Amino acid sequence: MNSSAPTLVFFSNTDDPAPWQAAIAAAVPSITFRVAPHTGPVDAVRYALVWKPPRGWLAQFPNLRAILSLGAGVDALLEDPALPPGIPITRMVDAGMGRQMAEYATYAVMHFHRHMQRYSALQREGRWAPLEPVAAARFTVGIMGLGVLGAQAAQMVASLGYPVLGWSRTTKQLPGVEVLSGNDALPGFLGRTRLLLNFLPLTPATRGVIDAQLLAMLPRGAFVVNLARGGHLVEPDLLAALDRGHIAGAMLDVFEQEPLPATHPFWRHPAVVVTPHVAAVTQAEDAAAQVIANLQRLERGEMPVGLVDRGAGY
Amino acid sequence: MNSSAPTLVFFSNTDDPAPWQAAIAAAVPSITFRVAPHTGPVDAVRYALVWKPPRGWLAQFPNLRAILSLGAGVDALLEDPALPPGIPITRMVDAGMGRQMAEYATYAVMHFHRHMQRYSALQREGRWAPLEPVAAARFTVGIMGLGVLGAQAAQMVASLGYPVLGWSRTTKQLPGVEVLSGNDALPGFLGRTRLLLNFLPLTPATRGVIDAQLLAMLPRGAFVVNLARGGHLVEPDLLAALDRGHIAGAMLDVFEQEPLPATHPFWRHPAVVVTPHVAAVTQAEDAAAQVIANLQRLERGEMPVGLVDRGAGY
Repeated sequence: MNSSAPTLVFFSNTDDPAPWQAAIAAAVPSITFRVAPHTGPVDAVRYALVWKPPRGWLAQFPNLRAILSLGAGVDALLEDPALPPGIPITRMVDAGMGRQMAEYATYAVMHFHRHMQRYSALQREGRWAPLEPVAAARFTVGIMGLGVLGAQAAQMVASLGYPVLGWSRTTKQLPGVEVLSGNDALPGFLGRTRLLLNFLPLTPATRGVIDAQLLAMLPRGAFVVNLARGGHLVEPDLLAALDRGHIAGAMLDVFEQEPLPATHPFWRHPAVVVTPHVAAVTQAEDAAAQVIANLQRLERGEMPVGLVDRGAGY
Repeated sequence: MNSSAPTLVFFSNTDDPAPWQAAIAAAVPSITFRVAPHTGPVDAVRYALVWKPPRGWLAQFPNLRAILSLGAGVDALLEDPALPPGIPITRMVDAGMGRQMAEYATYAVMHFHRHMQRYSALQREGRWAPLEPVAAARFTVGIMGLGVLGAQAAQMVASLGYPVLGWSRTTKQLPGVEVLSGNDALPGFLGRTRLLLNFLPLTPATRGVIDAQLLAMLPRGAFVVNLARGGHLVEPDLLAALDRGHIAGAMLDVFEQEPLPATHPFWRHPAVVVTPHVAAVTQAEDAAAQVIANLQRLERGEMPVGLVDRGAGY
């Protein structure tokens, strides 16, 4: 081992090193921060904070003690045949993404439940027109996809008193949520859903799942919220269902093509809310806090958290 | 006592009897529903479901067993010197108003916290422009007025992880909420508030409380939500604060003049959400459920709930 100040090397083609450098310098001043390719003496490098470094790049540091991934996905790292063995690799754990998606989902529920899309249209016309209220207890929210993110959204929506119905491919248990599972249960799930939240993963089986056939199974006047992936939604089918009034409104954060092209009809549709893929974004301060806590653990000789299981691949 | 079918008489100059008649006929078919002035034989009348009947009107029914008020306020009823003594009087208990106001308040918090007002403006321009997120934990919500309604909103907002600061004239305790009290504490309360929710009662002391001086004590970029009474807000002062950017947005449900005049600048202001006094409206089904449950209790010989204390006056 080398006795000089421990160095952290930063590598990313997409992340700005400056805020990381500032945050780490303030919280763990014992660590020297260097940005690739200016890594300094390779034997001083103890930590690597990285996003998709080139294969073999990490192997140059003989005294590396931990690899900290800037993202949640570590598939690219693990494919490096020269990945230094026997040292911990950590990944970003959530960094507030689940909470942000649950907030967005809850906001979307309240927006349509409380007629806010219609009040917004009335405001543009300067019209004072109270609408008949709907009790939250009668506004059933259906959530497709009950992984970590879908389950967290289900809990937040249910905590506000909305009946929540879940659907997943495999059987799940979720407190306070009635869960239906399997393809046979999908029509029954959709038929009872007043507002549909899509939290499915995008796979060959779920691409285009929100199509004319699915939308027709929702009751007339239902709402659709997509905050998963643009590829889940057949956009022309939603437009057709909106235009004939079968679907009363939609809130969309993700699109087949992003940024959403300026000519796309979603921008101007009075029943559609468009947001620019912001349901969940990495919050630099959350992510920095995780990395700093791990560096402090490592400097004290403890194991970091958010450890990657190299065998499982995540 | 009279042995024929018990009659309920309905009196109101402002409520439509038809939905009441339908709801009660379906749930308590043993009761005959009659609408004033067609009350039928006075000695068959056992229940009176009323809003502001003329003084002395109730005294004509010798076998009256309970008076059910259609509203929460019973001051007019209790001023009747001929009010039948010794029988229970019930008033409407909330009927979902507190929950609806809490929903509206929570929606307003999320709307501004998640930049939805700005995304809405960007959508109208067809512009894809993600904005820097703010963690809920850093978005402090200040609630002025911690009566039953303000306290319920505070609880719902706090349950979603927003820091909630309360202010009231007198000292209060509220779980999970830091409460400041008295006029001396107001500047400190406002200085820490990112979004202000007004839940004050309208009294001579609170009329015009949200004025230029109060708005100036909020931090730059704060948001204002008024769902109490239009008289709390000095509308030109808010417009001035919005136009110079000190206040970043407002959601307003109540106005000095309602309906809001078509020429009022609030309608067209890009930073203002206008809703037509709908934060809380009596939901006929909630109110009917309360009355029906009380009629069923009375028919079983039990005491109704929502009892008025004649001595206390409410």
